[in-house]
Amino acid sequence: MKKTAYIITIGDEILIGQVVDTNSAWISKQLYQHNIQVSKILSVSDTERGIRTALEDAKENADLVLLTGGLGPTKDDITKHVLADFFETSLVFDEKTYARIVDIFNKRDRKVTDLHHQQCFLPESATLLTNEKGSAPGMWFEKEEVIYVSMPGVPREMKYLMEAEVLPKIKEIGQEVILVNRTILTSGMGESNIAKRLTKFEEELPENASLAYLPSPGMVRLRISLEGNNPAELIQVLDQLTEQVQELIPELIAGYDLDSLEECLAEKLLTHAYRIGTAESCTGGFIAHKLTRKSGSSAYFEGSIIAYSNHIKETILKVNKEILDTHGAVSVETVEAMVKGTINLLGVDMAVAVSGIAGPTGARPDKPVGTVCIAVGNQDAIVSQRFQFSGDRMKNIHLTTNYALNMCIQFLKNNE
Amino acid sequence: MKKTAYIITIGDEILIGQVVDTNSAWISKQLYQHNIQVSKILSVSDTERGIRTALEDAKENADLVLLTGGLGPTKDDITKHVLADFFETSLVFDEKTYARIVDIFNKRDRKVTDLHHQQCFLPESATLLTNEKGSAPGMWFEKEEVIYVSMPGVPREMKYLMEAEVLPKIKEIGQEVILVNRTILTSGMGESNIAKRLTKFEEELPENASLAYLPSPGMVRLRISLEGNNPAELIQVLDQLTEQVQELIPELIAGYDLDSLEECLAEKLLTHAYRIGTAESCTGGFIAHKLTRKSGSSAYFEGSIIAYSNHIKETILKVNKEILDTHGAVSVETVEAMVKGTINLLGVDMAVAVSGIAGPTGARPDKPVGTVCIAVGNQDAIVSQRFQFSGDRMKNIHLTTNYALNMCIQFLKNNE
Repeated sequence: MKKTAYIITIGDEILIGQVVDTNSAWISKQLYQHNIQVSKILSVSDTERGIRTALEDAKENADLVLLTGGLGPTKDDITKHVLADFFETSLVFDEKTYARIVDIFNKRDRKVTDLHHQQCFLPESATLLTNEKGSAPGMWFEKEEVIYVSMPGVPREMKYLMEAEVLPKIKEIGQEVILVNRTILTSGMGESNIAKRLTKFEEELPENASLAYLPSPGMVRLRISLEGNNPAELIQVLDQLTEQVQELIPELIAGYDLDSLEECLAEKLLTHAYRIGTAESCTGGFIAHKLTRKSGSSAYFEGSIIAYSNHIKETILKVNKEILDTHGAVSVETVEAMVKGTINLLGVDMAVAVSGIAGPTGARPDKPVGTVCIAVGNQDAIVSQRFQFSGDRMKNIHLTTNYALNMCIQFLKNNE
Repeated sequence: MKKTAYIITIGDEILIGQVVDTNSAWISKQLYQHNIQVSKILSVSDTERGIRTALEDAKENADLVLLTGGLGPTKDDITKHVLADFFETSLVFDEKTYARIVDIFNKRDRKVTDLHHQQCFLPESATLLTNEKGSAPGMWFEKEEVIYVSMPGVPREMKYLMEAEVLPKIKEIGQEVILVNRTILTSGMGESNIAKRLTKFEEELPENASLAYLPSPGMVRLRISLEGNNPAELIQVLDQLTEQVQELIPELIAGYDLDSLEECLAEKLLTHAYRIGTAESCTGGFIAHKLTRKSGSSAYFEGSIIAYSNHIKETILKVNKEILDTHGAVSVETVEAMVKGTINLLGVDMAVAVSGIAGPTGARPDKPVGTVCIAVGNQDAIVSQRFQFSGDRMKNIHLTTNYALNMCIQFLKNNE
């Protein structure tokens, strides 16, 4: 049996929506990699009732309980009092913690306050974990075969304590089965249609394997997970399963174990030593933004023309006026001409161009909202496609961007 | 007594840390504004046990239970089965939902699959909430004076259902006092420095008023909230307080009751009947993207040149080579020349140009990471400024974008 964990975050700022709880996701990821299954994440208020009921729930259902938040010098923090009650221990003054705080404050030329003095009264039965990033130490408790660790809620401090103290100590807990997984990035088809093509594959998955769909606009990540004891064997099976998926949906696959299509494209561009430029109408610069999110993008990204008006398409990208008049700005003819214009103007190896009606306004009888044309090409060849999306404005922009990135990836794949 | 709510998010992707739960924070914020207290947020796995125990907990402790996730066409979603059991009802085929899905798919020229057919079996006792943004409807249940609402986990779909269906229905639950609030959008100064200038204002706030700081990179929203019984009186006081803030920090205010600086700028551009263009280096199209997020942007946005390379700055934007050689690409001289080049090339009334070192690479001895120059101008005048930011790459891109938008707003304010 896998060991299970609870994550409990304490503090009203999460319950009133002032702060997004990113700590839990970070902790979950670490525990997942240590083969410990998080079965519940709770956010509760900084009150005795809130904390106590969460602890009672955890006691019955978890092997490991990680608490964050509710530790600090301000007086609304009652976590340690509730912990002392729960573990039937008392609060005692810890000289070592106090000395650390005094030392930190002296170095910063600041005065230690009464609040800091009070902060050094800590539960006697806790093993204290030195927090090099702040004043409140972590606390480690064990009771009836359950481990409890309380940490400050400041992400920097929590992460330090997890990495320096907690994870090394809990390594042994999770080491009963090994978990491996692979993420396959796909684009060009929706979740349910991919599922259809993978029906048989899913039915025939080995007992210890599972497949999850993680969809976002214009992209579906497939995660294959495997559990077992023999790492070499697991990796081998994972490779075989990945290959099967590859054979079933070859034209949809953009990359492996990456988070985004722009990372897949960046890899391909670097491999080909290609520089790219974009010409964007309806996406308004979003493709260029995606391509420049990662550091080092100047190695493959040259620049873009955001041709929101026809005037720019004509005067700067040199799209023939007749093409615009005959076929309209949203047409495969126009985006193909935009690709050519971009390659000539920017002197790039490859360009992608998009034009469409993101909505909600701008529809024409033959071109409803969501009509989008995309072209990709180099000096030798251009491919283009017309799409009919049906999202709202932002979704259409995201869809167009991801489909355009994927068309670039497939274009480069076909030129390998 | 305030009514209390539970938020339950369902899905393994949160428990393994692959996805950060932003839904709960968004929902919490909405409920807070509706005077309902969130007492617990839970994330549980997509299993009968996970969902069931969360519902049992909620039943005893909440008046309102909002569930997200675990609804969709793939077979790993068992939420509705558990809901049917919990509410002692059965799953029946809903013709109306099926007709909606068929209609959506026909419009996209795609085929409805068996999975979609199965998706239309829904708990009989649920009131279905039409989801205009996706295939899975929301479900509203009432049992023993507790309201339960189950929604899809896709943020866009959840938000649509909350705004269109759920919040209007639950308005009365929280309506014991009236809550009014106003948001003042500021930019150009950090939270703690604004707080300093508003110290006295805050101290003298009436008992029933509060001021919240909602900071994000390059922007701080100030929210004044008032509680009471007489709406007319509350609005009057709110207007007075807003005026006081206006007098204390006039040059920082970009707008009122809008969510973003791009909306403030759009309003100003429309008032001035100005068309704008951008020339972007380090932001890589992000300013253009912000300006085109909202429908109708073609009324004031012409287009952009993403001049990621110096080659484009020189050949397309006609920045003098001597300026680039003498002052470098990241200099007020260069961005001023980029503004002029953009106005000439695109024929716009006004342009904004940015150049900077977003990091983590690219630093020079005299220009560390975070050095950013921004210029804004029209035919008659150009203003420019050099900034030193200290975030990571994405934060620097966001900061640059918001400071650039704010410089455009203040430029137009000064020309009124």
